[in-house]
Amino acid sequence: MSKYVIGVDYGTDSARAVIVDASNGATLSTAVCYYPRWKQGKYCDPSKNMYRQHPLDYIEAMETVIKESLAGVDPEVRENVVGIAFDTTGSTPCFVDMYGEPLALRREFSENPNAMFVLWKDHTAIAEAAEINEACKKADVDFSRYEGGIYSSEWFWSKVIHIMREDPAVAEAAYSVVEHCEWMPALLTGVTRADKIVRSRCAHGHKAMWHPDWNGLPSEEFLTSIEPALKGLREHLFCETFTADKPVGTLSPEWAAKFDLSTNVVVAGGALDAHFGAVGANAAPNTMVRVIGTSTCDMITATYQEMEGKLIPGICGQVDGSIVSGFIGLEAGQSAFGDIYAWLKRFVETPACDIINRSNSYPPQVKKALVDEIKDGMMAYLTREAEKVTPEQSCALATDYFNGRRTPDADQTLKGTITNLTLGTTAPMVYRALVEATAYGSRAIMERFKSEGVRIDAVIGIGGIALKSPFVMQTLSNVMGVPIKVCKTDQACALGAAMVAATASGIYKSVSDAQAAMNSGYAKEYVPEPAEVERYDKLYCDYIALTKKI
Amino acid sequence: MSKYVIGVDYGTDSARAVIVDASNGATLSTAVCYYPRWKQGKYCDPSKNMYRQHPLDYIEAMETVIKESLAGVDPEVRENVVGIAFDTTGSTPCFVDMYGEPLALRREFSENPNAMFVLWKDHTAIAEAAEINEACKKADVDFSRYEGGIYSSEWFWSKVIHIMREDPAVAEAAYSVVEHCEWMPALLTGVTRADKIVRSRCAHGHKAMWHPDWNGLPSEEFLTSIEPALKGLREHLFCETFTADKPVGTLSPEWAAKFDLSTNVVVAGGALDAHFGAVGANAAPNTMVRVIGTSTCDMITATYQEMEGKLIPGICGQVDGSIVSGFIGLEAGQSAFGDIYAWLKRFVETPACDIINRSNSYPPQVKKALVDEIKDGMMAYLTREAEKVTPEQSCALATDYFNGRRTPDADQTLKGTITNLTLGTTAPMVYRALVEATAYGSRAIMERFKSEGVRIDAVIGIGGIALKSPFVMQTLSNVMGVPIKVCKTDQACALGAAMVAATASGIYKSVSDAQAAMNSGYAKEYVPEPAEVERYDKLYCDYIALTKKI
Repeated sequence: MSKYVIGVDYGTDSARAVIVDASNGATLSTAVCYYPRWKQGKYCDPSKNMYRQHPLDYIEAMETVIKESLAGVDPEVRENVVGIAFDTTGSTPCFVDMYGEPLALRREFSENPNAMFVLWKDHTAIAEAAEINEACKKADVDFSRYEGGIYSSEWFWSKVIHIMREDPAVAEAAYSVVEHCEWMPALLTGVTRADKIVRSRCAHGHKAMWHPDWNGLPSEEFLTSIEPALKGLREHLFCETFTADKPVGTLSPEWAAKFDLSTNVVVAGGALDAHFGAVGANAAPNTMVRVIGTSTCDMITATYQEMEGKLIPGICGQVDGSIVSGFIGLEAGQSAFGDIYAWLKRFVETPACDIINRSNSYPPQVKKALVDEIKDGMMAYLTREAEKVTPEQSCALATDYFNGRRTPDADQTLKGTITNLTLGTTAPMVYRALVEATAYGSRAIMERFKSEGVRIDAVIGIGGIALKSPFVMQTLSNVMGVPIKVCKTDQACALGAAMVAATASGIYKSVSDAQAAMNSGYAKEYVPEPAEVERYDKLYCDYIALTKKI
Repeated sequence: MSKYVIGVDYGTDSARAVIVDASNGATLSTAVCYYPRWKQGKYCDPSKNMYRQHPLDYIEAMETVIKESLAGVDPEVRENVVGIAFDTTGSTPCFVDMYGEPLALRREFSENPNAMFVLWKDHTAIAEAAEINEACKKADVDFSRYEGGIYSSEWFWSKVIHIMREDPAVAEAAYSVVEHCEWMPALLTGVTRADKIVRSRCAHGHKAMWHPDWNGLPSEEFLTSIEPALKGLREHLFCETFTADKPVGTLSPEWAAKFDLSTNVVVAGGALDAHFGAVGANAAPNTMVRVIGTSTCDMITATYQEMEGKLIPGICGQVDGSIVSGFIGLEAGQSAFGDIYAWLKRFVETPACDIINRSNSYPPQVKKALVDEIKDGMMAYLTREAEKVTPEQSCALATDYFNGRRTPDADQTLKGTITNLTLGTTAPMVYRALVEATAYGSRAIMERFKSEGVRIDAVIGIGGIALKSPFVMQTLSNVMGVPIKVCKTDQACALGAAMVAATASGIYKSVSDAQAAMNSGYAKEYVPEPAEVERYDKLYCDYIALTKKI
């Protein structure tokens, strides 16, 4: 009798669920749901880089995608669902009360963005990150050493301190803090005490400076030296963290009834989306798995032997078991990738669309059709025209710091630059320069791993851009100088979640075994073109020189 | 009996003529003609910064504007026209044969861009400018010393050497070289020998290193040390130059007949457009007159006393009588000003317009109307939205080097940069940054004059942008920290030509007298806003820091 697992993947804008045959990884059903409040732009202020998500968005999206995906399969499949696993964005923390309930679910905080999940890309805590870094360099132990030696404003403690300072009412009501990826399993297994929440190795090893070297989180003394109001919070948090392949529990009667599933369904531990993406993409040593979407997340599973005594500076951490148990998971990434292309798209299309929308010359439905045609056609136009740009015309040079820099060497205060502009520079030329800039930024990450002794022979790409943008992917292969395989699945994170669910529910002994049985194979391989590799070797030096100037 | 004069102004894209009452400067008639071949984009390659203009464009445009402007006045006015003067862009040189005829007017060269006028903004001679600068620094006499100490690729000798090297057939056929502004008077007065052409003090003092200190042009030895093929050219050129208020001759019978004017009409000397613009704008000591259009040209008339012993580095020259006889004319300028705004306009509107033009959803006439509406509305949209940008949102910072830098310290190899870009940066924010960048570039020129001891108390603005862009002009006043008056006339160059024509034909004793009688007065004055001046004082330092980095 076949067994089935559910993988649920929470992205920046939407959640999706897949129902997967645990024997071969075949996807039987899938469903997607956009977060309703987020879609309306609520609780965000892009001008301040403030991005918050309401816990109800997560609950409603989960109910929708699990119910809808189950509606798409035979009753026999539903009856044989044995496991479920969640991945989410992160660090996306939220203050909770002593029952483990996010504060925004309480009436008095229901519209307060500081009581909601602080999305990974929220950059309101830049000042706090700087203070943490300063404290780390001064302390006897550098608690940031396993996180690349630079603590980011996108991470747990920066956000926790920022909100405690900004919102005394939230600070007062808060008992503990959860990451989105550990709250989902807690919710489904019916946990009603904050201290019973099973904590994520992946999230806290990479984002909260958790490490066995100092028996868990950084010391109370260290934390309160940065912000005295943190006093007492640490003991409400946790000492232990767990890899995602360990079961957290089973479905609570309430949720089992809602989904018409058995209370025997095992709920696995949660992890960050990119890490499950790496699992789903068949991550293996000496291969970098890149989730290439609005930003990138770059993951490597390295053997204990290869990492012996190595501390890699300027990345997002090295954590035992954060991707696959038995390997050190290394994480890096770019703060913006596809987001930069989307920026240029908006930049050029918005003025024309605004002019059309305000025009009195056309009826509303004609204006809407026109605006849609421009917006729908813009990315294809920029790509098609950028491909025609010759190397001689292509002198514009950009950095990829439009949303700061995550790695190498996190610095969220950095901003984007475009230089070598002439009166003849067109939007497609700048698009090409931005594609190259994101590729140079990718190479800079790879070079950091290499210079620290972690070999990278190949890249596996997953995510929207990997599947949909041959121009970007070929440029990336030429700039990085390595072959890039693209996974057949367009749901690598959800598939990875399914693999972890299959492991947690005992179908496989290890995640590696699940990967071997359930992987999707590859849709395409991009191979570096020697002449372009040589040309980009030189241009990469110009990029590096530019990043040092500005 | 009233007397009348004709001022003819050749701009980058078109020529215009005004018929002016010499007693009070009132304009009775005006006509404009766009250069027909130029309008089609002929003989140009923007990707190489190559811009050439056919002499037939100049002849045909002149006939059209003089005939049309005369058609607009009473016969009595026509009978009392006593003088005519020309200004043109420059340095815009052309190789001529021994009859003073531009080579492109000969059948064998009629389609050869190297036998045409090399427009001021042509940047094909960057390498030659570098060689000239190197030779100047090595020579016993620095021939560039009265031209700011840096010779530009936009100037006479760079272009002459470049074309002689690139086109041996043209070099072989060439007898001499003329500037556009001295060819027009020669043509109208019937000169048929190259060595009889009256040479322009303004053009050659500023652009060809002509100076009394070395009895004219740089020495044969110096010139041939850079390019041996120059041997012999110097003696076919000239030793003397003349200020524009001196008559060159009278209208030839052929041209008098064509225009139905008397052969007694005096033809004045020619000068560069911006210099006549300064005359027309009522230039006076301690006031900078700025022609603000696609680029800027900045002019100051300084007294002999103020300039005693001063050599101002990094400007476009200091020439006795180049603007008004009896004063030292100082010239500076920005290689691009409005051109940078037009660049952003094209950058954002072209993709949407291309998508519309290629769409199958609308009939051609609807597509044309749509594209026209977008293009016609774009500048106003960018301006309106840029005015709403708050100082907090306004973090983008740019340089104004999209077409290189003319002053201070010419360097045509420089390119434009936009930095401090975030994912929230919009086109109107960048437009604002570009307006500020052009204003910072303007201030950098003013600061150079001030630091070298030339006082500037006020600015007078002329040209399209001065009259049409209050947002740009107010920003300029705030950044420069001085009041800016804008002339009432929208044809300051042509009016200045009329003033010079009135002087050359003996109606006034001096150009200053003509200015006093014929000036147009001011349409508007922009006054610096103290809070903004303070804010921009800081941001100007950021701009200077950026220009030093990149």
